[in-house]
Amino acid sequence: MFKLYYAPGTCALATHIALEEAGAPYEAVLVDFRSQAQRSPEYLAVNPKGRVPALVTEQGTLTETPALLCFVAQCFPAAELAPLSDPFALARVQEFNSYLCSTVHVAHAHRMRGARWADDAAAIEAMKRKVPSNVTECFALIEQKFLKGPWVMGDHYTICDPYLFTIGSWIGDDGVDTARVPRVIEHRARMLERPAVQRAVAAEGTRIA
Amino acid sequence: MFKLYYAPGTCALATHIALEEAGAPYEAVLVDFRSQAQRSPEYLAVNPKGRVPALVTEQGTLTETPALLCFVAQCFPAAELAPLSDPFALARVQEFNSYLCSTVHVAHAHRMRGARWADDAAAIEAMKRKVPSNVTECFALIEQKFLKGPWVMGDHYTICDPYLFTIGSWIGDDGVDTARVPRVIEHRARMLERPAVQRAVAAEGTRIA
Repeated sequence: MFKLYYAPGTCALATHIALEEAGAPYEAVLVDFRSQAQRSPEYLAVNPKGRVPALVTEQGTLTETPALLCFVAQCFPAAELAPLSDPFALARVQEFNSYLCSTVHVAHAHRMRGARWADDAAAIEAMKRKVPSNVTECFALIEQKFLKGPWVMGDHYTICDPYLFTIGSWIGDDGVDTARVPRVIEHRARMLERPAVQRAVAAEGTRIA
Repeated sequence: MFKLYYAPGTCALATHIALEEAGAPYEAVLVDFRSQAQRSPEYLAVNPKGRVPALVTEQGTLTETPALLCFVAQCFPAAELAPLSDPFALARVQEFNSYLCSTVHVAHAHRMRGARWADDAAAIEAMKRKVPSNVTECFALIEQKFLKGPWVMGDHYTICDPYLFTIGSWIGDDGVDTARVPRVIEHRARMLERPAVQRAVAAEGTRIA
């Protein structure tokens, strides 16, 4: 039995969906960001980074979405969530997820979390102003180059799909003109038809914009 | 035969080292950042993100350091650069590398690449001012929690080591008081004893601070 620490509206949703897709035994535990619970001594003992997601396993606690997604895929091979034995195909999956975590999520985070990178209020406002163009640029690349369709990697659903769905659910609020990324929006609709996605979204009470 | 596109002083060094460790057949191709070659039409045809590293393989071009490192490990299993068949141990490797790409490299990048996240000169200066404390915080976690020693994952050298070595080689310039992270500095010295590291560093003409 795994324990997934999550908060609504965060990238933890990607792992939440993957656990549902895999049929993994797990319990979802809410970390209340409104009371800054992610910075509490209790939670820092779980994850010293003070972030979600964190996945408690019998062997220890794991963090970082790309690692968790690959872990779920590897623990539940019958769900076929990643091309585990094909180095190039797996690298394509990891390349996409790594781009999401290191570039796309970071571009988004400058809207709400600018205080991570500057102390100055005017600088934080300046960062916010650039979020729409930065996130638009990322999603234009995804739309035109990376999202093969119907799923990210083509015909086969993988751990890229819940991660794109999760970060893609923020782009309206990030100021992206979603009419410019119709294939991303179609992917979102396709995801919302999946029972595993519906269960994770409902459990978190997440609003999909 | 792979082709690795790199520039000195970038995270491409991690993949360069891994290719050397694996004994992979490859050619290293310099992308001249001084002439903005990473933004040339020729290079954007290789990697539309306009970044390094990019690894050209017979099956296509791959990017993103964590993906490349795992790809090299999986293509050359005899080099034993990752615990490929142990899901938890592999997740630990990927968790570390994902932290480096999405948090540590990003914290560092606000020193030289602030223009990615704001257009305002004062904001870019404000970001620079926070780099020393941010990178120090990341490396304190690495020093105290993640670097098991002698290698990142303990007794066994993995794809975490060239990546930590690469990003760790920037921390003096980032304003980290390296006396506070002695285990990271010892790890750097240990890395510099490895012939594969020496070859990649020499080929790139990289200065290790």
